[in-house]
Amino acid sequence: MVIFMKRVMLIVSYDGTNYHGWQVQPSAVTIEGVLNEKISELTGESIQVIGASRTDAGVHALGNVAVFDTESRIPGEKFSYALNQRLPEDIVIQRSTEVDGEFHPRHCDCIKTYEYTIINRTFPLPEYRNTAYFYYGPLQIEPMRKAAKAFLGEHDFAGFCSAGAQVQTTVRTIYSLEVMQDLAESKIKIRVTGNGFLYNMVRIIAGTLLEVGKGAISPEDMDGIIASCDRQKAGPTAPAKGLKLLGIEYQEKIV
Amino acid sequence: MVIFMKRVMLIVSYDGTNYHGWQVQPSAVTIEGVLNEKISELTGESIQVIGASRTDAGVHALGNVAVFDTESRIPGEKFSYALNQRLPEDIVIQRSTEVDGEFHPRHCDCIKTYEYTIINRTFPLPEYRNTAYFYYGPLQIEPMRKAAKAFLGEHDFAGFCSAGAQVQTTVRTIYSLEVMQDLAESKIKIRVTGNGFLYNMVRIIAGTLLEVGKGAISPEDMDGIIASCDRQKAGPTAPAKGLKLLGIEYQEKIV
Repeated sequence: MVIFMKRVMLIVSYDGTNYHGWQVQPSAVTIEGVLNEKISELTGESIQVIGASRTDAGVHALGNVAVFDTESRIPGEKFSYALNQRLPEDIVIQRSTEVDGEFHPRHCDCIKTYEYTIINRTFPLPEYRNTAYFYYGPLQIEPMRKAAKAFLGEHDFAGFCSAGAQVQTTVRTIYSLEVMQDLAESKIKIRVTGNGFLYNMVRIIAGTLLEVGKGAISPEDMDGIIASCDRQKAGPTAPAKGLKLLGIEYQEKIV
Repeated sequence: MVIFMKRVMLIVSYDGTNYHGWQVQPSAVTIEGVLNEKISELTGESIQVIGASRTDAGVHALGNVAVFDTESRIPGEKFSYALNQRLPEDIVIQRSTEVDGEFHPRHCDCIKTYEYTIINRTFPLPEYRNTAYFYYGPLQIEPMRKAAKAFLGEHDFAGFCSAGAQVQTTVRTIYSLEVMQDLAESKIKIRVTGNGFLYNMVRIIAGTLLEVGKGAISPEDMDGIIASCDRQKAGPTAPAKGLKLLGIEYQEKIV
């Protein structure tokens, strides 16, 4: 008997508020755990997805990527419809497609884009209580934009990494880092694109730019802070709930 | 003994998801109920606020207005800070101020602005599951914009009113009605400003413009549909969760 096995890729969006992050944990509800459960239910197989980005508790995603192998006869592009009927409202598959069996979402070169949202006004906005960091004090945008430029290009970001992660190198390349202001919604968004990010790196960049906005760090000192590779010189890790993984682009052809 | 009584106005924002609407109900949690409880706790008095707009269950607000009378020595503008420390995260006072003792938020002439949000893409966005209506089919924006023009000015909106409300007249004036599209977020916003709205009027306008966007109602028929005063000719009442009261402007000086 010939068994036809295929690899299916999912583009997964979620509101991370009610989850203990992406990665499966023995006694906590996680995004990966819910996906494993629902895909297993649907296919009748024991499925374990492989995720591209193992986001922390409270972090959100518009387009995280996951793959799984299945013998199911459901066509790749139909999994999105079938799974969305089973998934809770805060996890939605935006797209599903069959990919090359060799494709691994963490071992392939990719470009990731994250967004960090800050609500900056006298009092918080209830609508954004779980999806943005609230800061009431004045923030100067132009110094934040100036400081953002120092991150561009290839750097050793050892100073922008929380302890505990095991990585071969702390060198990463940032392709763009924008600070956008929406005055009507009193919203500031920090959007960063790079070829990979260290543990908590985007949240530490956001926390550092916030210090620049408050005037506690000068944009002129940014080059030196990055070059120092000293975690103590960068700003604090901004709260998880303001962070969203917008999407991941793979550089090789995967379909 | 002289008792100094003052009237305090609150600008109240809330995510209505977890509430059975504004108005106090015997055995359900409401925005008004929570405000009465927290202001009473703070002042030691038995406070009953008067709200400007008694929004339905699931409807949100950026700037609803409420007033209450108090003998408290807390200055009017300090109530926002004191109350926000006691209120749940999904109800936030944006501003508080002392107003004239004669000011009544429902009996004074005012201009209200509402926004109705639609997420229009193949699959929903988890972040907006409670604050927008999701529609997956194609929507034509230009016909919606053309139809919107028919609502401008003074009309008898009897056909855009749900049964059950007791009003002296169903004539209202709409000053502006915009249909805005944000392609990056696959979001359509309908923003309407008028001198008052009948029961469910904004949700019926949104439901009608959705029918226009789908091609089920022609923009050329809009004048006739409004003039008919026939609820059956207008579109369905769009779901509550897409609606947000942006703000209320009072025409007389109230401070």
